[in-house]
Amino acid sequence: MKSRVRIVEVGPRDGLQNEKVTVATADKIELVDRLSATGLQSIEATSFVSPKWVPQLADAAEVYAGIQRRPGVHYPVLVPNERGYERAREVGVEEIAVFTAASEEFNRRNINASIEESLQRFEPVLRRARADGVRVRGYVSTVLGCPYQGAVPLADVVRVARELHQMGCYEVSLGDTIGVGTPGKARDMLRAVAAEVPMTALAVHFHDTWGQALANILGCLEEGVAVVDAAVAGTGGCPYARGASGNVATEDVVYMLHGLGVETGVDLEALAATGRWLSGLLGRETGSKAGRALTAA
Amino acid sequence: MKSRVRIVEVGPRDGLQNEKVTVATADKIELVDRLSATGLQSIEATSFVSPKWVPQLADAAEVYAGIQRRPGVHYPVLVPNERGYERAREVGVEEIAVFTAASEEFNRRNINASIEESLQRFEPVLRRARADGVRVRGYVSTVLGCPYQGAVPLADVVRVARELHQMGCYEVSLGDTIGVGTPGKARDMLRAVAAEVPMTALAVHFHDTWGQALANILGCLEEGVAVVDAAVAGTGGCPYARGASGNVATEDVVYMLHGLGVETGVDLEALAATGRWLSGLLGRETGSKAGRALTAA
Repeated sequence: MKSRVRIVEVGPRDGLQNEKVTVATADKIELVDRLSATGLQSIEATSFVSPKWVPQLADAAEVYAGIQRRPGVHYPVLVPNERGYERAREVGVEEIAVFTAASEEFNRRNINASIEESLQRFEPVLRRARADGVRVRGYVSTVLGCPYQGAVPLADVVRVARELHQMGCYEVSLGDTIGVGTPGKARDMLRAVAAEVPMTALAVHFHDTWGQALANILGCLEEGVAVVDAAVAGTGGCPYARGASGNVATEDVVYMLHGLGVETGVDLEALAATGRWLSGLLGRETGSKAGRALTAA
Repeated sequence: MKSRVRIVEVGPRDGLQNEKVTVATADKIELVDRLSATGLQSIEATSFVSPKWVPQLADAAEVYAGIQRRPGVHYPVLVPNERGYERAREVGVEEIAVFTAASEEFNRRNINASIEESLQRFEPVLRRARADGVRVRGYVSTVLGCPYQGAVPLADVVRVARELHQMGCYEVSLGDTIGVGTPGKARDMLRAVAAEVPMTALAVHFHDTWGQALANILGCLEEGVAVVDAAVAGTGGCPYARGASGNVATEDVVYMLHGLGVETGVDLEALAATGRWLSGLLGRETGSKAGRALTAA
């Protein structure tokens, strides 16, 4: 297991985009600023996907323009295409994240394209990013299962991850979008991808729909991964399973890592306070058990 | 990792004893019967601790007398002393569980005795159980932390576990009562105990207060443990951290084990249905994410 792990905080994007309560722009800005004050080094700040698809993040430009940029902290934003890339660049974005699924059926139903076509759509974005000196992170979703096709062949996960890396993504995040994975399958998947993409260029991204996220992360840490995506207060939900829980909570991940003697650079108390504040805004109980325990203590 | 794991279902006892809503005797009986129908082989049915301390389980004798005894299923009950043993035997109990803490301070504050004295109090119970052919399970609580003294020396955990085993407990369950453990510490603790008590005589018992339970179980499975305590619907709470979550949910454990290719003999669908039904009785959402996901699916 690595002695230091980098957390990629995805709460302001992957978390909020699936929350029902509308969050004010000023609160989103405060959220990102509070998160950067905890010591987090990567914070996905917002999404430049069309507001038609993600109304919660329609204020992406205002949010990005409003956040305080701390030195040494990266603020990637999600970008679906060239139009999104241009909107992001207009407000000075220096890191983007692109995304595709490992499931053919998921791609077909969600963006009406095959995996191959979806990758092709990102080529001009990656070309421009390279020319502009913009860092690009890649997401592969449905790596351990798909809400439509069920099982996803490992070979498809490996191929998509390899292509994103070859296209210029400095890091590829492997996402269990519907949270169905268990630790053995998660490790097998990570090992297969790491045979083609360096482990140092991989991250894992788990949703806690079936309660397995932290165990899956543990398995992947044992496999050697050193970057973990998580969302403060366990924000987000699962559009494919109503009422199900969201991303793994950053507080729970940080608590585990510190307990394992793994450094994160994150102040857990400050993080939990941010999670409490955000849960208040969302009018719901935090999805972080460590956060709840810290509040009770 | 073992290819088969036995789950000890503690919901009817450790779960219910910390739930606020009073559950009717008939419902407790139905709970145990539904659980035994899922394929679970060990179900802690109730507690013969004084009703003064655990009012929810004041009907222990009626519950035990009412449950259907399935062949091959064990129904241990918690017993605090000889008086409890006698009450349990009056209704035909064939397996009991005794308990002490690894924390001196916890013992002192909770039962006004040192660890040594608490073990001595069980000696006559274990002697009678042996004579009566009654199986005895032992619990060691606070193995990874104490709400009063904080850290608990590993040597104390090892000593208490060894003594319970030597006194005749066929199995010793190591409990993280306040759910503060993380996987590395859990493994270290288990390894230390297993150096003195055979791994085949050990079980692990995690509460999910800090969200770590399933990851801790994974770590302990990798260490070779083959018995895991869990409570359907994640029932129970933590009297030392109000509002905190309870036992690890059996549904989540079974889902992980099956995903790991480990047999449990448990029908997950039937178990989740029981968790849903119980949560309805308790008037709250299930504490099992796998249970919630199965409902949503």
